[in-house]
Amino acid sequence: MEEKKCNVLFRVEGGEDVSIFAFFGESLLDAAKRANLALDAPCAGNGSCGKCRVKLLAGTVKSEPDRHISGKEFAEGHRLACTSLVISDIAVQVSGMALAYRDRIKVSGRGVVRERNIFRNLQKELREMGLEKDSGLELAAVQLEGPENGDVTADRERLLRKIAAQTGLAQEDIGFSLHALRRIPRALRQANFSLLCVLRYERVRREAGIKIGITIMDVFAGNTDPPPVIAGMAIDIGTTTVSALMVDLLTGEILTMGSAGNGQIRYGADVISRIIESARPGGLERLRSAVTEECVAPLIREMSETVELKPENIYRVVVAGNTTMTHLFMGINPEYLRLEPYVPAFFESGPLKSADLNLGVHPDADVLIAPAIGSYVGGDISAGVFASMIFKKETLSLFVDLGTNGELALGNSEFMMSCACSAGPAFEGGDIICGMRATDGAIEACHVNKDTMEPAIMVVGAMDQKPVGICGSGLIDLVGELFRCGIINARGKFVKEGKRIRRDEWGIASYVVAFAKDTANGRDVVLSEPDIDNFIRAKGAIFSAIKTMLAILDFDVGMIEDVYVAGGIGGGINMRQAIRIGMLPNLPVKKYHYIGNSSMHGAFAMLTARQAGEMVTEISRGMTYIELSSHPGYMDEFVAACFLPHTNGELFEQVE
Amino acid sequence: MEEKKCNVLFRVEGGEDVSIFAFFGESLLDAAKRANLALDAPCAGNGSCGKCRVKLLAGTVKSEPDRHISGKEFAEGHRLACTSLVISDIAVQVSGMALAYRDRIKVSGRGVVRERNIFRNLQKELREMGLEKDSGLELAAVQLEGPENGDVTADRERLLRKIAAQTGLAQEDIGFSLHALRRIPRALRQANFSLLCVLRYERVRREAGIKIGITIMDVFAGNTDPPPVIAGMAIDIGTTTVSALMVDLLTGEILTMGSAGNGQIRYGADVISRIIESARPGGLERLRSAVTEECVAPLIREMSETVELKPENIYRVVVAGNTTMTHLFMGINPEYLRLEPYVPAFFESGPLKSADLNLGVHPDADVLIAPAIGSYVGGDISAGVFASMIFKKETLSLFVDLGTNGELALGNSEFMMSCACSAGPAFEGGDIICGMRATDGAIEACHVNKDTMEPAIMVVGAMDQKPVGICGSGLIDLVGELFRCGIINARGKFVKEGKRIRRDEWGIASYVVAFAKDTANGRDVVLSEPDIDNFIRAKGAIFSAIKTMLAILDFDVGMIEDVYVAGGIGGGINMRQAIRIGMLPNLPVKKYHYIGNSSMHGAFAMLTARQAGEMVTEISRGMTYIELSSHPGYMDEFVAACFLPHTNGELFEQVE
Repeated sequence: MEEKKCNVLFRVEGGEDVSIFAFFGESLLDAAKRANLALDAPCAGNGSCGKCRVKLLAGTVKSEPDRHISGKEFAEGHRLACTSLVISDIAVQVSGMALAYRDRIKVSGRGVVRERNIFRNLQKELREMGLEKDSGLELAAVQLEGPENGDVTADRERLLRKIAAQTGLAQEDIGFSLHALRRIPRALRQANFSLLCVLRYERVRREAGIKIGITIMDVFAGNTDPPPVIAGMAIDIGTTTVSALMVDLLTGEILTMGSAGNGQIRYGADVISRIIESARPGGLERLRSAVTEECVAPLIREMSETVELKPENIYRVVVAGNTTMTHLFMGINPEYLRLEPYVPAFFESGPLKSADLNLGVHPDADVLIAPAIGSYVGGDISAGVFASMIFKKETLSLFVDLGTNGELALGNSEFMMSCACSAGPAFEGGDIICGMRATDGAIEACHVNKDTMEPAIMVVGAMDQKPVGICGSGLIDLVGELFRCGIINARGKFVKEGKRIRRDEWGIASYVVAFAKDTANGRDVVLSEPDIDNFIRAKGAIFSAIKTMLAILDFDVGMIEDVYVAGGIGGGINMRQAIRIGMLPNLPVKKYHYIGNSSMHGAFAMLTARQAGEMVTEISRGMTYIELSSHPGYMDEFVAACFLPHTNGELFEQVE
Repeated sequence: MEEKKCNVLFRVEGGEDVSIFAFFGESLLDAAKRANLALDAPCAGNGSCGKCRVKLLAGTVKSEPDRHISGKEFAEGHRLACTSLVISDIAVQVSGMALAYRDRIKVSGRGVVRERNIFRNLQKELREMGLEKDSGLELAAVQLEGPENGDVTADRERLLRKIAAQTGLAQEDIGFSLHALRRIPRALRQANFSLLCVLRYERVRREAGIKIGITIMDVFAGNTDPPPVIAGMAIDIGTTTVSALMVDLLTGEILTMGSAGNGQIRYGADVISRIIESARPGGLERLRSAVTEECVAPLIREMSETVELKPENIYRVVVAGNTTMTHLFMGINPEYLRLEPYVPAFFESGPLKSADLNLGVHPDADVLIAPAIGSYVGGDISAGVFASMIFKKETLSLFVDLGTNGELALGNSEFMMSCACSAGPAFEGGDIICGMRATDGAIEACHVNKDTMEPAIMVVGAMDQKPVGICGSGLIDLVGELFRCGIINARGKFVKEGKRIRRDEWGIASYVVAFAKDTANGRDVVLSEPDIDNFIRAKGAIFSAIKTMLAILDFDVGMIEDVYVAGGIGGGINMRQAIRIGMLPNLPVKKYHYIGNSSMHGAFAMLTARQAGEMVTEISRGMTYIELSSHPGYMDEFVAACFLPHTNGELFEQVE
């Protein structure tokens, strides 16, 4: 029996129409995914987040009004894509954001480095540790004798003989990349048998007695001008965003930075949704391809274009990401990560080649994956902890990486412990009615006047950018301010009335941060009590994780000398507010250090210095992993932390 | 300015229509190539061979009658595709053979081995040399402890730890294929953490002191039944035909044999045409893809299906071919092979991975390419000489591989010398009006009655197969018989008259082997004086190469103790006839040994025994390569050999 199909036309705001067939009864969200449209659906399509709003232009879908779509909106054609089933040929209008994940590749100009100070600090520390510029790659000039004297040795063997003589290595210890072999015949004859060779030293040379091997990775005519660049990529694969650095491995210079939305987001905002999707037929390959072919590879291409480099001149790649992200990036089934006893397929990936991962760079480029620590503490944390340098200090440091998952490490030069807590997507705008990621239109900071209850807001984007929603740092500020001003109580319930406070028919209150007339999309930006509930659970998860780790070690919070806060979301974090609401412990603000995208910084160190890679591996192997979900006591701590700032008020005395 | 395009419809006899756009003024042959139709064009489209005949059904092409197309045929619509330029929308009829190269994959049933005796001899020799079953691959059963005891070590590290303990190796010396990593999570949990692992030992173990490394290539659930097969492929890439063996590497059993036409043939019959084509824009990739994606990969798929094996269970591949073929197979520019001083890009390829070559087998399978000796003596000869075992004998042996190129080796256990002569495509049916490859309809043997001048012929194919043309072995017979019967003289000119002898308007004579009424295509099968000229040059090239090698060594032909004749074309060779016409030296017939496709046999040895690969490399490195084209004296020898049997009759006394 042939399945009935319906024609679905997606009219994308500001983009081209997309038309596909949907199966009768398929959800509009699923149809959109197959059409490669990324409707925002952080709840993975279970109807709870209300983000996947579309507008029906023609035809009929099976759906009903619900808490996200009022009767009036429904009459106007508004629908949630996830709860609307296709039962006829239809046309729907979708937000231009549906294309955003594909288009939202941002690449800095040549040499432009964001968070320059953080970066300079890191580079200074690396320099002091002697960890600069040892990527194993070198550019060697070689002058060969041509065949004029009757020596008709083949090109490869001619070069091998010379490199062996020049390095003192046996020919058997010199490898030859197929890519180089494909290029040698012409390169040799372009400059009278003089060559520039990209050589990769396979073994670290600093230890005596370890044999060195070389691979000839590439060859250029000796008169190539300017001389070829030996580039490398450090890539952080986040659940939401992929960030990357392109580096000149010979000079250590950062050539360009870039970022792109993780294309997997249309399968859900958090790692659990992705794991569930990966178990569906073809799901693993869909997710692998969504991050690689749709995101990492185009990002690399665009960054290469920006600096006028061929992607094949990228000879080394380091990737850091959480355990689920690296599984999916490598096309490895992550399903056992979410099934007890939560065993990953790998901690360390072993050496990988670019061609196996379809990155589009030099096919034999080494790809290093930062090693994972546990099922929910990944290589992003190994790399991030390295970049924080807390493993070098004798005093106790706390490392907090804020994201969809909160990951924590606590330790010093003697020991290291880590855990993850599912903060949920609130910090990245998920589960919050007007929540959004920190992109154009996001309220990223705010102040509330205690007397008038009027807010002053800062919005991401151009000077005249009107607000659309609230991102993580804005949420921390807003909840902190509402609490400071006594507008909400310790349970997050509204206890004042005013023109910005609204109550719906069920008595649920909201605070209107921006009225419809002042917003970019003509809809109020509000924060509701259920939003605050979700947010309190998120911040409670972080704080209770910190408390649990301290309890396991029988440590006191006062023993923490430094707190390093990492994560893209943490960019604009107001530490004082974060303490006020009981998300971070009550320590002097000067002990807090924002270190940005520490995962990418750690990957940068691994990229430019092989020894840094070894140290990251040591960190990951030496770190104790606590599985909080099965740890007794954690749930009690969590419940206690789900107040503003905490049920135990003593913990946050003298905050003001 | 947009280029004008014309629609070309190819009506393929017995196949589906193929329609493409051709550029205005493009030759029909080039259009056919782009349409992936393999018109027979051994002259590579220079109008000399007359094989690429098509019939115009509608529209007009720019062309004229010539020596291949008579005025009457021209009026009927017959054209040569290579000299017909597209100037309007047209429809043309092409032979069903145009699809033959694509379809002509032949795979034997499971365990069916052709030339079984030759194979048994080889296997016996290998056994005596201790060269059986050391492919480096093993199947190991491993029982792991599950995570019940709370050990949540990742799957990869859990297996590494066990393999390290089981083998006594350090974990750093154990590699892990990404393919295996992708399979381990499910495999582990299908049989309660028991596994069957395919292990590859990276170093030869027989020499003391050499460190062993292991790569975990694949994992299967421990209860897989029947246990997985570890298969390997030995592949001979010929200029005309690709042949392959699939072998069970644990038992040494040949699972199946197969062959396919080399898809490159539509770019010309000989290596020079291929090299020229490869230098055109996109040509190198066209030729690489024509042999790999169109031929080797589908052949492997079909052979795998025949024995119900997944191609990914092929863990080792050995490829032998002439120097041009291996360059093209690896996607390496061969242009300098045909430019003085004829320097190849490589003799030895170094280790390659299947994924880099797109073979569709296990992505990390080692691919070994038999090492080349010189620009025109390739790995097929290194492998073939190994299979002939002449390097083990104290007495002098001659090795002759007959094909589009004739390749020769002369030597014993002390020394070895080789050279190539461009015999031209005559042995494979090229440059001969009714020439064809040894496929259905080819006259492969013949006898001529001295009195009646009537022939008795043997035709390849079914019992009632009517002749279409003449293949190499048939040519040798026919020329030998015409000479023996005194129908042609020492110069190859007809000196008798009769009903089978015809002379055209210019006085050029032909012998009609089969009249139109008795042939499959309704056209006479003839052998003309120009054909005989071409053939004499081919046989003269072989003989003069042998003579030149002997002269260089100051050896006498009588010192040759054994002659090994290899090559698919040599299958049915009548050695007595080959001596009669002066192609092979006048030695007792019992000294001649037909050894079949020795290139594939050598590849088989390399596949099953790593030490054989090392010996082949030693042979290739130790062999002296003579570049005949620049060798003084060769041309004189060649001219002298262009007679039947030779200008120096003494060389062939007592042949009868």
